[in-house]
Amino acid sequence: MDHEIVDYMEMALSTAEIAAHRGEVPVGAVIVDTASGRIIANSGNQMVGRSDPTAHAEMLALRAAGNMIGSQRLVDCDMYVTLEPCPMCAAAISLARIRRLYFGAYDPKGGGVEYGARIFDQASCHHRPEVYGGIHECESATLLKNFFETRR
Amino acid sequence: MDHEIVDYMEMALSTAEIAAHRGEVPVGAVIVDTASGRIIANSGNQMVGRSDPTAHAEMLALRAAGNMIGSQRLVDCDMYVTLEPCPMCAAAISLARIRRLYFGAYDPKGGGVEYGARIFDQASCHHRPEVYGGIHECESATLLKNFFETRR
Repeated sequence: MDHEIVDYMEMALSTAEIAAHRGEVPVGAVIVDTASGRIIANSGNQMVGRSDPTAHAEMLALRAAGNMIGSQRLVDCDMYVTLEPCPMCAAAISLARIRRLYFGAYDPKGGGVEYGARIFDQASCHHRPEVYGGIHECESATLLKNFFETRR
Repeated sequence: MDHEIVDYMEMALSTAEIAAHRGEVPVGAVIVDTASGRIIANSGNQMVGRSDPTAHAEMLALRAAGNMIGSQRLVDCDMYVTLEPCPMCAAAISLARIRRLYFGAYDPKGGGVEYGARIFDQASCHHRPEVYGGIHECESATLLKNFFETRR
C-alpha cells in the first residue's frame, strides 16, 4: 500500500484519539492538497464541545480547507477519515468536489457511502469521489469500540 | 393554513432574498423554538461568501440554533426553509432531531427529502421529522428562477 496513504490515515487516527480525550466520539479527518502533499485541514469531532449537530470531523475539515484555499470547491484535494462518512458528510464531500475519499472502519449502522443512503450512488449525485474503504480499519474500529465501552 | 407557518416561511423568504443580493443562491432557513414561538436562528446561503461548501442556509441555522440553546439536539424545534433540503442538510436535520420540517419549493434535481437519496426514508435514519412541502412554493421557486436568469 502507498506509504503516504497510511501516514495520512495515521494522522487522522491521532486526531480521533484526541477527540476521544475531549469526550467526543473518536473520529478524525484530514484533507490533503494533492499537488503539494500538504495537509490543509485536520479535524476531530466537536459536536459536544460546540453544541453543533453538524460538527462532524469531516464537516469541520471541509470548512477549514475551503477557508484556507478560498474556495468552496476543493478540487485536487483528498480526504482521509477514520470512519465511513454518514450521509450528511458524504453529501458534503460530494459538494466540495473531493477527489479521493479514504476511510477506515465501515459503518453499517450510520454510514452513507457503502451503507444506508449510499449518497455517491444516487443518480442526482453530481460528483462522486474515488472511494477506498478499510484503510487502518481495525485501529479505527477499536478506537470507537473502546470509547463506547468506557462510557457504559 | 396556520397563520404562523406562513409568517415563518415569509421570514425565510426575506432571508433568501437578502442572500441573492450577496450573490448567493437564494435559500433561507428559519428555526423556531416551538414552546415560545421564538425564532432562534435565521440564515441564508453563504457558500460563496465563506468559501465553505457546507454553508447552506439550513446548516448555518442548525449551527446557530445549537449554539443558542447549548445543545446539539434541537428538540421541540421546527425548521422553515424555502427549498427542499439537499441530502447533506436533510441528514443534518435528522441528526439535530428537528421536530417538523416545512419547505417551499420541491427540488427534483438536488433535493434529498422527496427526491434523490430520500434521507428520512432510509432504514438507517434514526429520526424522521414531520415533513410539509410546498409552503409558499411558487414564491420560493420564482426567487431561484429569477436569480439564475440574471446570472446567465
